[in-house]
Amino acid sequence: MQFKTLPGFREFYPEECLQRNHLFSVWRSVARSFGFAEYDAPILEPLELYIEKSGEEIVGQLFNFEDRGGRAVALRPEMTPSLARLVGARANGLKRPVRWFNIGEHYRYERPQKGRLRAFYQFNADILGIEGAAADAELIALMVQSLRRLGLSSEDFRVRLSDRLLWKVILEAAGLEGASASAVLGVVDKMERLPREKTLELLTPHLAEPDAWLTRIEAMMAQVDSVEALKAFLDELHPSLSPDGQTLAAARLAEWQVLLRELKMLGVGDFIRIDLGIVRGLAYYTGFVFEAFETSGDSRALAGGGRYDDLVAKLGGPGMPAVGFAMGDVTVFDLLKSKERLPPCFQKPDVAILVEGETGRGSALQLATVLREQGCSVEVPLKAQSMNKQLKAAQQKGAAVAVCFYPELAEGAEVRVRHFADRTERTLALDEAASLVLATLDQAAFPDEL
Amino acid sequence: MQFKTLPGFREFYPEECLQRNHLFSVWRSVARSFGFAEYDAPILEPLELYIEKSGEEIVGQLFNFEDRGGRAVALRPEMTPSLARLVGARANGLKRPVRWFNIGEHYRYERPQKGRLRAFYQFNADILGIEGAAADAELIALMVQSLRRLGLSSEDFRVRLSDRLLWKVILEAAGLEGASASAVLGVVDKMERLPREKTLELLTPHLAEPDAWLTRIEAMMAQVDSVEALKAFLDELHPSLSPDGQTLAAARLAEWQVLLRELKMLGVGDFIRIDLGIVRGLAYYTGFVFEAFETSGDSRALAGGGRYDDLVAKLGGPGMPAVGFAMGDVTVFDLLKSKERLPPCFQKPDVAILVEGETGRGSALQLATVLREQGCSVEVPLKAQSMNKQLKAAQQKGAAVAVCFYPELAEGAEVRVRHFADRTERTLALDEAASLVLATLDQAAFPDEL
Repeated sequence: MQFKTLPGFREFYPEECLQRNHLFSVWRSVARSFGFAEYDAPILEPLELYIEKSGEEIVGQLFNFEDRGGRAVALRPEMTPSLARLVGARANGLKRPVRWFNIGEHYRYERPQKGRLRAFYQFNADILGIEGAAADAELIALMVQSLRRLGLSSEDFRVRLSDRLLWKVILEAAGLEGASASAVLGVVDKMERLPREKTLELLTPHLAEPDAWLTRIEAMMAQVDSVEALKAFLDELHPSLSPDGQTLAAARLAEWQVLLRELKMLGVGDFIRIDLGIVRGLAYYTGFVFEAFETSGDSRALAGGGRYDDLVAKLGGPGMPAVGFAMGDVTVFDLLKSKERLPPCFQKPDVAILVEGETGRGSALQLATVLREQGCSVEVPLKAQSMNKQLKAAQQKGAAVAVCFYPELAEGAEVRVRHFADRTERTLALDEAASLVLATLDQAAFPDEL
Repeated sequence: MQFKTLPGFREFYPEECLQRNHLFSVWRSVARSFGFAEYDAPILEPLELYIEKSGEEIVGQLFNFEDRGGRAVALRPEMTPSLARLVGARANGLKRPVRWFNIGEHYRYERPQKGRLRAFYQFNADILGIEGAAADAELIALMVQSLRRLGLSSEDFRVRLSDRLLWKVILEAAGLEGASASAVLGVVDKMERLPREKTLELLTPHLAEPDAWLTRIEAMMAQVDSVEALKAFLDELHPSLSPDGQTLAAARLAEWQVLLRELKMLGVGDFIRIDLGIVRGLAYYTGFVFEAFETSGDSRALAGGGRYDDLVAKLGGPGMPAVGFAMGDVTVFDLLKSKERLPPCFQKPDVAILVEGETGRGSALQLATVLREQGCSVEVPLKAQSMNKQLKAAQQKGAAVAVCFYPELAEGAEVRVRHFADRTERTLALDEAASLVLATLDQAAFPDEL
């Protein structure tokens, strides 16, 4: 009987596992450098948690079922609801701002395709308990630096920046509120991928002059690429706004100024593009939204996030402002591969201990134990083979050093140490072998461990 | 609406996550020191994979369901079936012996209790493609060293060693084969936890003289604690064995001699106890079986494994001998906690950058970026606060150094650097700050990162 991996799920053979771990390790170390603490939550959660956050329509994309105890449960499609529960449950005890990150797997029942699998990892980072654009900037800087530290530059990716509250202002100026505002925003979210006529058709039920409106929106998207242009655009909008709308517009302009200044001071200004075309489908965003996307090819999203000040309270916690992003491993990996930015991922032993016959075996295993306790990666033979065969295998595996126990040397308590790099060989007393090997490896620097 | 974590699942707040990561990091580094390579496989697999390995009765313990594509699937209850599939599928291309490990989560729908959860991590290590006790010894040594490196000694845990093939010999001597042999083995597996009368009652249907047999088994379990005692016991059994049984008995004795000698040479002899009472429920073991268990209290199992030479072929691969173990995080953690062997797990920033007013903010964020790129963990303020408040918060968080940007110093491009350890403070030029801070941290050694 032959068994197959489920569609959209991955197996990680050692080389792929090293690559995956490389990604995790970069994410983890950048997050820590920003002072973020790691947390984790179950991969299986009550289905209701996701429905409460995203509405009933999410269920069609989930791996959900009833467990043996009759509970409706689902494999987590994202981290944010669990995070909101964790933070909400201990809101009083946690020092604010909370800076947390997670690296974990998530699951969605979607059609597997390029850049999208049914099981994928995400790097989630969030700052909770604090308002204001400085937190948004800090988080966006973390997102940018995580990609940079993987070897990507501003030629490879950019961050598009938009603002859901600004869209509220724009939609109010168009006379839209509530359900029709949401519907129009939904169309804007898709318009990049739709022919213009289709966009127009979708807008028509909601707007008095859809064509004029769309033209204006298109012009805005093309022109608003700086705070100055944004200011000019808002000035133009000013007469069509209510007093509340005018206040909000002024407040958002000030927030934009802070955000862009902070991003520049954090050294990531080059990566930022204002792009009001970004809406990000999820309804729960309440301020700035952003997406890191690749500049070449099909400009797929590498990461995305935004401010969501209402979610913690919605999921049962106290009121708690929050901003976060999620970065997926699938598109990031595809990009790193296509740009050849992945480091060589091939695990080599530091030391191969080779034994001919049985005489030296006791000393050989003892040496292995000593070296292993020093942190060396050491392989020992598990069956009898000729020394030549063992040497060949050790070289093929990429070992830096071989320590050879020959029966004729064992009686004099000697071993032969071979360095594969320069093909040198030395015979020396067994009790010198450990320190020589350690010194050699230290000097040659241990092969980079991922 | 309040949401709860499902019973038997865990949340990891930052301190618990650091503890978990400490465990993972020790497991990972010991496995690498033995030359093992990491792999991974999906957490969701075809249900049939587990039924094929363990029989229909496994289903009652699984989180299993039908996915949207009508596939019968299950959350993985263990790693071995997926491992067997991975290795089987590339058997020809993999260098033998295959030395692989995995650290991953597994899921069983059982009643949560002390030492047992519904979601738990396991460290799995396996050597495939090689026969003989040297491989078994290498694997057992890895198991022992993984626990030792967590701070446990031979006073805290031991390894019980038994042999399914030896049991085959013993059962043949009692006239048992096939189903009744399996049934008797099943009783032996449980007899440690049963009153003697109950054991006798369970044995009665299968044996002509159950009481005499049980007495003999009990004597054997008590007496066979060395290879010599094992030899004496097998000599006694010799007349009741078939010629095949006699050959097998002699072969097993030789294997025991190799195994115990190798374990001693690998420096873990002190941890080993021969204990034929260990059977390990799973039917698929085909040679040595072993369990690491805590010596105190309720002597719960910390890890267990054995040789399983038939499984890869059974799951669709070629014939491939194999030996492996799994170590669970739940009992290991309980033991480490009760023995107070867990290192302090509290994440501190290396550097707190503090800013009063806005004047120095640009330089402050720039310094943060430089230090972060050097691998320091650096926190920056995300809202305006008095310097005193900021200093107090930084000290409470355990930062080693604070770099303070005061408006009155900003104009002269100066900062004040405070070391919390010795409460010293120095005012110095901004462009010296980064190198001073790095030197200080280097000297004080970065707080151990887990």
